[in-house]
Amino acid sequence: MAIIVQKFGGTSVANPERIRNVAKRVAKNFDQGNDMVVILSAMAGVTDSLIHLAGQMADSPDRRELDVLLATGEQTTAALLAMTLKSMNYPAVSLLGYQAEVVTDHNYSNARILDIGASRIKEMLEKRNIVVVAGFQGTDAEGNITTLGRGGSDTSAVAIAAALKANVCEIYTDVDGVYTADPNVCSKARKLDKISCEEMLEMASLGAKVLHIRSVEFALKHNVTVYVRSSFNEEEGTMVINGDHDMERPVVSGITYSKNEARITLKKVPDQPGIAAKIFSPIADAKINVDMIIQNTRAEGQTDLTFTVPKTEFKKALDIERKVAEQIGAEQVLGDENIAKVSVTGIGMKSHSGVALKMFDCLAAENINITMISTSEIRISCVVEEKKAELAVRVLHTAFGLDREE
Amino acid sequence: MAIIVQKFGGTSVANPERIRNVAKRVAKNFDQGNDMVVILSAMAGVTDSLIHLAGQMADSPDRRELDVLLATGEQTTAALLAMTLKSMNYPAVSLLGYQAEVVTDHNYSNARILDIGASRIKEMLEKRNIVVVAGFQGTDAEGNITTLGRGGSDTSAVAIAAALKANVCEIYTDVDGVYTADPNVCSKARKLDKISCEEMLEMASLGAKVLHIRSVEFALKHNVTVYVRSSFNEEEGTMVINGDHDMERPVVSGITYSKNEARITLKKVPDQPGIAAKIFSPIADAKINVDMIIQNTRAEGQTDLTFTVPKTEFKKALDIERKVAEQIGAEQVLGDENIAKVSVTGIGMKSHSGVALKMFDCLAAENINITMISTSEIRISCVVEEKKAELAVRVLHTAFGLDREE
Repeated sequence: MAIIVQKFGGTSVANPERIRNVAKRVAKNFDQGNDMVVILSAMAGVTDSLIHLAGQMADSPDRRELDVLLATGEQTTAALLAMTLKSMNYPAVSLLGYQAEVVTDHNYSNARILDIGASRIKEMLEKRNIVVVAGFQGTDAEGNITTLGRGGSDTSAVAIAAALKANVCEIYTDVDGVYTADPNVCSKARKLDKISCEEMLEMASLGAKVLHIRSVEFALKHNVTVYVRSSFNEEEGTMVINGDHDMERPVVSGITYSKNEARITLKKVPDQPGIAAKIFSPIADAKINVDMIIQNTRAEGQTDLTFTVPKTEFKKALDIERKVAEQIGAEQVLGDENIAKVSVTGIGMKSHSGVALKMFDCLAAENINITMISTSEIRISCVVEEKKAELAVRVLHTAFGLDREE
Repeated sequence: MAIIVQKFGGTSVANPERIRNVAKRVAKNFDQGNDMVVILSAMAGVTDSLIHLAGQMADSPDRRELDVLLATGEQTTAALLAMTLKSMNYPAVSLLGYQAEVVTDHNYSNARILDIGASRIKEMLEKRNIVVVAGFQGTDAEGNITTLGRGGSDTSAVAIAAALKANVCEIYTDVDGVYTADPNVCSKARKLDKISCEEMLEMASLGAKVLHIRSVEFALKHNVTVYVRSSFNEEEGTMVINGDHDMERPVVSGITYSKNEARITLKKVPDQPGIAAKIFSPIADAKINVDMIIQNTRAEGQTDLTFTVPKTEFKKALDIERKVAEQIGAEQVLGDENIAKVSVTGIGMKSHSGVALKMFDCLAAENINITMISTSEIRISCVVEEKKAELAVRVLHTAFGLDREE
């Protein structure tokens, strides 16, 4: 008899009819003799409505109280699913974050799970209950309600699966798995049967649409097998595997892109020790994440410095750097929002050389200019013109042999 | 410095604008140096919407899960008020039932408060916080969420006031106090400055529109002073006073009526020992409350037996008694839904005789026929034809000198 943790996202519980479908799916697994723990998100749209409501009360709502408010969304769906199962004559009980002993840090709205006691869940499972847990929420050490940030129910599910040593954590969502590329951009994208946690992390821009990235980190750390599949059909999904089980993995698993970044360039910066700190400290102080950085040394003791920030922080970062440029005597500050980052990811790259070269050649052949490059052990990313991002994805998808066979 | 508990009902927190008004009222009391504890209901209509939603999931929703669902209503308003106060730069914190240590029995949907720890509330007050508590909810000894039944937030407020030994428990509602009669029926009704808890309990049909009856029982038992007033104006309300402070109280405080009952008569019941048990046991087994009972002895060892039940239980009670009548050999079962109970209530009756006589005379003078009578120490109730209830209220109101001076 297996312990199965199933998580259903907001679109999967968006209305009574869909909640009934979830109940039937859970009941089927229970009838097969499995111990069932179900983690739910709020109904699609509810969290946004609650944030809107909070916005009517305060320009910048107190984060503790916002979490108390947002936690009602998952409380609602958990109660509704449990009462649906009960009305179908299945033993079921809902548990909120604090009842399931999901202990987090104090960081309201974006809390991290520190520990899951899970003694109540285990007790309920021993009594052969289907345990329905409100996702996205926990409590800090003082018993204040916290939430885990957008997509946090995935992390709730993986963390509870880890605490229970569950056989599998199934994430039911509105897509039917992880693809080699966004199918909306690349019609030849294939669904992957398997992907490693490491690849999933590197494919953040793609992965974030399917799995909360922090949940993948959790799966990697606690050795949880995650299975992503659709709640709207019975198709096989994608297994997110921990460790190096599969030796015959392809060199490249997927092509991703992101349009969420913008670029800032400081021209003719005096090339002196400590200058980088002067440029990046105020950005860090403003809690803006810098992703890629390149530096081109010019003649005459001057250098050009280029970096990327999230597009949402672009204006703020540009204002900061204009002041910095005055202070340090840089000639000019340029900004560009019309960029995209295209990435090739694959755990097989570790043992195969030539991937970067192939990527550059392929983009050059299509006249796609590369303006920045960054790499990790299993990923190569290039910044290109925003309008060429989709084309870049398609040509790379073909070049690395990922196209679906017709 | 006083400890003031304020409770705001659903219409008082029905939308963001009204929640802001509540915040201003609370802040004003806080600025005057008082320790403030605020208890909130759900927004008007929300509890009904949630019950409707539950009804879409199950014909008869599991009561434990229904309580988990309903508890979100007060959680929402508590968070919204606390964040509004914070945005106005007041220190505020919301507490849910379990955080405020409201311990109840296991009776989901209609739980009774057993104990209030209130250590967290006291701790927060000591730090000069405005403490906002979600009303209507608690947890049982196992930590399951319970709710207190319709109007239960009043009881939350009075119980918390008792636990804190608060100076006053102010109940803000959409009426501006307790009246000598329903002003919709009797245009000359006057607002009472004061009323005793005992009278309030006896005036249940009137009182229930203003205060949850269980909260008055709680106030009586724990010696809490309750002050009922409107949240929509600054007018003085009605003080519900515990004990016999005021010696000059009028003989009669109010005239009330109720159309929520129906009458059942068993004709020609064999007058044998044990017959009453045979008639009322099946009613009790069906958990139907019997209010008034009268028995008219006829000739020939037969008797007629008449009693009243809540109108909502009328059909069920009638079916039960038809079976009973067959078993015991009663001749006929009659039912009448078109009745009303009119009551005269006043703690001064204890020391004044003649109230009953005056009531009967007054009704007779208007050709209003009395079919059943019941009395308590401070109340006399008569059953009359439903269509004459309002008339009865008005003539009694005048006869007992309650009319407002023009």
